[in-house]
Amino acid sequence: MSKTIGILGGMGPAATLDLFNKIILNTPVQSDQEHHRIIIYNNPKIPPRTQQSQPLPELIKSAILLEKAGADFIIMPCNSAHIWLEQIKAVIHIPFYSIIETTVESILSEEEAFPNKKILLLATETTINNRLYQKAFHHTPYEIIIPMKEEQRIIDNAIKEVKLGKISSNQYVKELNRILHVYKEIGISVIIGGCTEIPLLFHLFNADMKMIDPTLLLAKLAVQKAT
Amino acid sequence: MSKTIGILGGMGPAATLDLFNKIILNTPVQSDQEHHRIIIYNNPKIPPRTQQSQPLPELIKSAILLEKAGADFIIMPCNSAHIWLEQIKAVIHIPFYSIIETTVESILSEEEAFPNKKILLLATETTINNRLYQKAFHHTPYEIIIPMKEEQRIIDNAIKEVKLGKISSNQYVKELNRILHVYKEIGISVIIGGCTEIPLLFHLFNADMKMIDPTLLLAKLAVQKAT
Repeated sequence: MSKTIGILGGMGPAATLDLFNKIILNTPVQSDQEHHRIIIYNNPKIPPRTQQSQPLPELIKSAILLEKAGADFIIMPCNSAHIWLEQIKAVIHIPFYSIIETTVESILSEEEAFPNKKILLLATETTINNRLYQKAFHHTPYEIIIPMKEEQRIIDNAIKEVKLGKISSNQYVKELNRILHVYKEIGISVIIGGCTEIPLLFHLFNADMKMIDPTLLLAKLAVQKAT
Repeated sequence: MSKTIGILGGMGPAATLDLFNKIILNTPVQSDQEHHRIIIYNNPKIPPRTQQSQPLPELIKSAILLEKAGADFIIMPCNSAHIWLEQIKAVIHIPFYSIIETTVESILSEEEAFPNKKILLLATETTINNRLYQKAFHHTPYEIIIPMKEEQRIIDNAIKEVKLGKISSNQYVKELNRILHVYKEIGISVIIGGCTEIPLLFHLFNADMKMIDPTLLLAKLAVQKAT
């Protein structure tokens, strides 16, 4: 019996669309009917995740809405919002699969593909300051590299532009590429797009690095759990 | 107060994704929070619309789910499923905006743009046999041109391939283009993509014709109604 996927989205809508697309593309079908049921709550009214604790009431309302509507499990295409993962889980009775845990498990399972254990994290300042990925990689062989303050400002600006629909016209891509080349020079050849807006820019990155897309990993996990 | 858009989708998922994308692209914003709340029920388990009356119970369940979840109105990115529009409307207490009525109203409102009153309809055989567009254009100055039987077979096959994810690799595009050129030759220069899979192929059409995209018109209507 196929399960219904619940997507707690809207942070932002383009990232939610990207997750929906990646779920469709990663579902092998011969007809419409073989696809999975998905309930998406695109709720962009959730306050910015930079505002400490303010998003929580709206996140909880959204998770409850999805459960009541019939979702069998929930996934959330916003890394920063995972700050409140435990509080959301506490109010629902269905599984909630973390994008961050999914990413860590995927990396641990294909260890041999990594030339060294250093991974550059491209994420919002909020995700980084809350140490979401650093904690998840603690007690693993991997070292998460955090961009410097000035680099982080560029990353946050690039993310803001994606949220306004600017992808190929994103004016920070050039600077992002410069930053990636600097890290590549010092031997870092893997990045995590640890904000769901970042993988939307991957096709514009020109450094020879392995790019890990947590949205794609979450989409594949959702397909597997729904099947 | 911004309204919540309800999307009764999944017929197929790629068309639902297309509508979601067109809503996002047609919402002018300066931040995530200015986007609209959208609840999407991507329900691909709805039986094929070719099976007379079988889809109705699942369509009704889906509409009720959206209303209960908090949608303020419903739109449905599947033309053929509009066969059951009145039966669905009868069980809900919120507005349901028809993709077909939206398309007709849009065409009537910009009459001057049309060189003559003949419009070629590219839709499923089911939509055509149920005369959904023909009835909607009745008592207007427009004449809906229906493809010939052999042409219709090609259109239905092209739609089936889009449903399997084949867009740029769609093997029927070449034949579709041949058909469009034939109609262009006899003075028809406007088409309606009257199946939500058809506008996904528009960028591959090379005849010099005005291409009307009901999904886009419905997206714009939804943004207007939600604002």
